[in-house]
Amino acid sequence: MTVYNFAAGPSQMFKEVLEQAANEMLDYNGTGMGVVEMSHRSKPFQAIQDEAEALFRELLNIPENYSVLFMTGGGSTQFDAVPLNLLVKGKADYLDTGNFANKAMKAAMRYGDIRCVASSKADVYTYIPKVTRADFDPDADYVHITSNNTIFGTRFKEFPDTPTPLVCDMSSEILSRRIDVSKFGVIYAGAQKNISGAGVTVVIIRNDLIGNAKPICPIMLNYKTYADNGSMYNTPPCYSIYLAMLTLRHLKKLGGVDAINVINERKAKKLYDFIDNTNFYTNKVNKEDRSIMNVPFVCATPELDAKFVKEAGENGLVSIKGHRLVGGMRASIYNAMPEEGVDALIDFMKKFELQNS
Amino acid sequence: MTVYNFAAGPSQMFKEVLEQAANEMLDYNGTGMGVVEMSHRSKPFQAIQDEAEALFRELLNIPENYSVLFMTGGGSTQFDAVPLNLLVKGKADYLDTGNFANKAMKAAMRYGDIRCVASSKADVYTYIPKVTRADFDPDADYVHITSNNTIFGTRFKEFPDTPTPLVCDMSSEILSRRIDVSKFGVIYAGAQKNISGAGVTVVIIRNDLIGNAKPICPIMLNYKTYADNGSMYNTPPCYSIYLAMLTLRHLKKLGGVDAINVINERKAKKLYDFIDNTNFYTNKVNKEDRSIMNVPFVCATPELDAKFVKEAGENGLVSIKGHRLVGGMRASIYNAMPEEGVDALIDFMKKFELQNS
Repeated sequence: MTVYNFAAGPSQMFKEVLEQAANEMLDYNGTGMGVVEMSHRSKPFQAIQDEAEALFRELLNIPENYSVLFMTGGGSTQFDAVPLNLLVKGKADYLDTGNFANKAMKAAMRYGDIRCVASSKADVYTYIPKVTRADFDPDADYVHITSNNTIFGTRFKEFPDTPTPLVCDMSSEILSRRIDVSKFGVIYAGAQKNISGAGVTVVIIRNDLIGNAKPICPIMLNYKTYADNGSMYNTPPCYSIYLAMLTLRHLKKLGGVDAINVINERKAKKLYDFIDNTNFYTNKVNKEDRSIMNVPFVCATPELDAKFVKEAGENGLVSIKGHRLVGGMRASIYNAMPEEGVDALIDFMKKFELQNS
Repeated sequence: MTVYNFAAGPSQMFKEVLEQAANEMLDYNGTGMGVVEMSHRSKPFQAIQDEAEALFRELLNIPENYSVLFMTGGGSTQFDAVPLNLLVKGKADYLDTGNFANKAMKAAMRYGDIRCVASSKADVYTYIPKVTRADFDPDADYVHITSNNTIFGTRFKEFPDTPTPLVCDMSSEILSRRIDVSKFGVIYAGAQKNISGAGVTVVIIRNDLIGNAKPICPIMLNYKTYADNGSMYNTPPCYSIYLAMLTLRHLKKLGGVDAINVINERKAKKLYDFIDNTNFYTNKVNKEDRSIMNVPFVCATPELDAKFVKEAGENGLVSIKGHRLVGGMRASIYNAMPEEGVDALIDFMKKFELQNS
């Protein structure tokens, strides 16, 4: 049975990437060593990390005045790192569009004067609040947003125009569509959705924002530590960086971000169209704010939802249970989910509807 | 050509572990998914993490009133996390026995009143200073030591008796010998020497020391975040934890820590005996403080050292160059370095001596 893994992250990876990783596990490129046991100071590993960075720069068209840092600790570590590095005047604006956006905001409140510019919390985060440039404080250090809300299935289709640097948690949609990096001050992303396995966090940062960390900022949370040392002040998470390099190589081979975006949009449209055309399944998200990475949906009752999750799993459609804050189901359909996976899900949804209507 | 990898970390792993990892890369245990793409909330991954913790507890005989936490960011992140979590009265004692011990001490100075109880820095860290219980401040929050100094090749053969909790960076010797965990307040270790690939940091902590973090402690550096959430407040570095589990399983099969210690002592003795019996190679470390994990040595001139490193590499003895602070060579012979690797190194050293005397 083919298994399609709809987990929100860690999530399905490209089969070609895992095949290559398996083949090279004991001997990378004729070195007689696996990547996981290689010194991070060795030439072969340095080449891997350099290629990962170069591919990020190429695929996302990252301007030269930005650094690409490889950190650890996931998005949650950035929730503290961002204010510790960027609060200089001491004020920042946050948009509260989901569970992680909210956590980022609360973490920042411990370090400065943090303002919630807009929130959709009262409506269970089913939409992205509309904001204009005038809504932001021009004297703040930055504006923080979460571009795609994994749990609730919303995304910023367009990014807000801000008078201060835009800092964006892009964990659950990075590399899924073209973005204009020059419009951001900082983009950060945990790897376990579209980049690699869990373990590395990528930070893309405009160079003038590096070097202003508070004295209490831990050394390994300070962006300058990474920028000054090529992300090798200490041992980086080498194997996660290697899997990122393989994933980026594969993405480039597929045609890059624009090409995968066409597929991503098609996959999401198929699934949303199917849901919208039944009365059996419901997606509660404001249509124009729908994520193309995470598609939550519910049946009429929690009992039916539980039955769906169980039977889907028995049919090879695994990890499709929704987050406890939302309930129901959630199909995470990141870059590495093949279109056949979405087709298989829709087929199953049809059968399940027939059997349970 | 068989390659023996003498890197200080990341370092050689057990072949059996990498073989199993390669075999399971695309399908772990019949799930149809690889571990690296599996949800951390899934049953199969939870079982992996639970087994890793259980094996740590069994192999190190960890008392029940200690927690085992899986963090990220390596030892260097702990250099900040330790004072951020443990400074309550605001004072701590540090022993300065090497480069990393020194970095840990300097990081802590940013958060409190830190005292250097003893240092061997003036003698290029070639020995472990002798200290007694009376040397420590009974009013301090803790004493920090580095049990094995990777760069300089020294170790605490016996651990100091301290009036306050003993906090120990055990990155480069954990699982290499029996220790009495109950004598420590905190033991931490980056994984990339004796545990796994780089990416996970294991923290073994007495439960009463959890929960006193400073308000400015980042959430992902607070031990309580991990203790309260089974190390799953956010996505853990799943694949590194899986490789740890496989490594611990293999270590158990080999007879555990006592059995590997016999082999480790034998490997180290062979190499030190050989060095001590030539006039061609020198190890500058105080004999009773010699590490059994990292064996630094030099030839008569830097030119000879460079020639040694080059020719050793050509003969499959790789990553044997010493750290720039010490120069010369360093053979890191962790748990996974087979005795044949040490034999091959000694054979090469003999030949090199003959050809260059």
